[in-house]
Amino acid sequence: MLEDTAQRILNGEVRALARAASWVEDRRPEAENLLRELFPRTGHALVIGVTGAPGAGKSTLCDQFIHNFRAEGKTVGVIAVDPTSPYTGGALLGDRIRMQQHHADPGVFIRSMATRGCLGGLAAPTSEMTMLFDAAGRDVVLVETVGVGQDEVEIARLADVTIVVLVPGMGDDVQAIKAGIMEIADVFVINKADLPGADKLERELKSHLSISHRPDGWTPPVIHSVASEGKGIAEALAAVRAYQARGTNRERAAGIWSVRLREMLRERLLDRFPEHDFVAAGREVAERRRDPFSILHEWLGR
Amino acid sequence: MLEDTAQRILNGEVRALARAASWVEDRRPEAENLLRELFPRTGHALVIGVTGAPGAGKSTLCDQFIHNFRAEGKTVGVIAVDPTSPYTGGALLGDRIRMQQHHADPGVFIRSMATRGCLGGLAAPTSEMTMLFDAAGRDVVLVETVGVGQDEVEIARLADVTIVVLVPGMGDDVQAIKAGIMEIADVFVINKADLPGADKLERELKSHLSISHRPDGWTPPVIHSVASEGKGIAEALAAVRAYQARGTNRERAAGIWSVRLREMLRERLLDRFPEHDFVAAGREVAERRRDPFSILHEWLGR
Repeated sequence: MLEDTAQRILNGEVRALARAASWVEDRRPEAENLLRELFPRTGHALVIGVTGAPGAGKSTLCDQFIHNFRAEGKTVGVIAVDPTSPYTGGALLGDRIRMQQHHADPGVFIRSMATRGCLGGLAAPTSEMTMLFDAAGRDVVLVETVGVGQDEVEIARLADVTIVVLVPGMGDDVQAIKAGIMEIADVFVINKADLPGADKLERELKSHLSISHRPDGWTPPVIHSVASEGKGIAEALAAVRAYQARGTNRERAAGIWSVRLREMLRERLLDRFPEHDFVAAGREVAERRRDPFSILHEWLGR
Repeated sequence: MLEDTAQRILNGEVRALARAASWVEDRRPEAENLLRELFPRTGHALVIGVTGAPGAGKSTLCDQFIHNFRAEGKTVGVIAVDPTSPYTGGALLGDRIRMQQHHADPGVFIRSMATRGCLGGLAAPTSEMTMLFDAAGRDVVLVETVGVGQDEVEIARLADVTIVVLVPGMGDDVQAIKAGIMEIADVFVINKADLPGADKLERELKSHLSISHRPDGWTPPVIHSVASEGKGIAEALAAVRAYQARGTNRERAAGIWSVRLREMLRERLLDRFPEHDFVAAGREVAERRRDPFSILHEWLGR
């Protein structure tokens, strides 16, 4: 059954891919067995991370990228990484809905990843989904992350190329964003560049870039776009290709896998501790019946 | 030596507190021993989480809260949770610098927490810093988190009361923010409420609140503030007290400790695997010499 699924995924069958994607999402044991089998066939997709503040237009930009890749006959996988409400467990898809226009096109496969309510929970499943899409022969995998949080930034960084999307007129926010995402950008896209302040933002970015030196010697280009009108898309993709054309960065690939392995290990280690242990222990500590460190000591001694 | 440090911290000595805070930051083994000793003396501080999008004015608000608490003779600890650049390892303090005006006041103790470069890395150390400040007799601990990421949101939630700071005129962003932080707010503060759109934002919030029902029956109040002019501060703190006045929420406290324990366990489990293992394995996988799952299998078998 498993080998059959693997073979069907390698053949590019979308239904088999959809089923396997659900296994990855649901953290089913089948996912690991399948991915282990598929792994030797990965490493061919171009993985593009797209991140930036909420409202920057990341989804519209991704949507335009999809159109461009499809026009070239390339297949695309999209992983939309969603923050989740801790109370309701529901993921808000926001304007990603517009990507549903690709619903009827088997060359575009879209999945949203939502947390299962734990901290730092999306890096491992997103990595595994990327592997799956890669093995399924998708030429391009877009990983879109919302927010400027540490986690989302890190997930976007686990790509071959990372695009940071900014918008003009953010004022003081630029400083705040700088701290998290300035350094991970291989390509900057100033979206909604028809708004006032686009040139000022470009100057600020370039001034920042002129004093920061990347270990790989690359200077991230700054592209202007109006994604909703399709402007600047070709330029952004040309910048992605220019970065890729420098050849595979072996150090980067090894670094990405090192982070992925850590996340996958973290998840598996924690899975060994049943949820009810945490609930019961949380109660004991809250009531000061035990201290947290003796509980940890006991758990680690198992 | 350790007992001595513990005693000096319990006596409220700021120098001992500063040293212990560095132990927590540097993840030194002394920190755990110290906190184990101090734990029975915790549980008295009011822990207030403050979160919201970059540029919302969280630091200015915290600054005003500090002034108010100090005027009442209360001591304050502030933990500013900072996103970190993955390349430089440096944390950008932004406008938190203004809090340095409290530098000469021993009743205000401020520490920034920056990641050590790993994913999801700040929940455990922030919890431990909170315990330390609590044991040191700080009446109030403010935990300020930047960003709208999953991690930052979760950290802010690990407080007795969580304040979500919004600003008018965010437009589409509200939707995006809703997904992450709407449900964790015990109190909403619309800061910069003199800007156009404050009333519209309040209506949107209230409309959202009217359809969401919290398990504890509390309806989060919506406070208007202009933190830079000290307006709305007393009202925000009154809302915090009103929430607290309902009595200790045992379920919430147990839930917070359950999350904290998980984060502390996660960190300790991962610490057992040396960094060079990840680097070497990352290289092997990137070159497709081994698959990630067989490496994980080997590690987990240790």
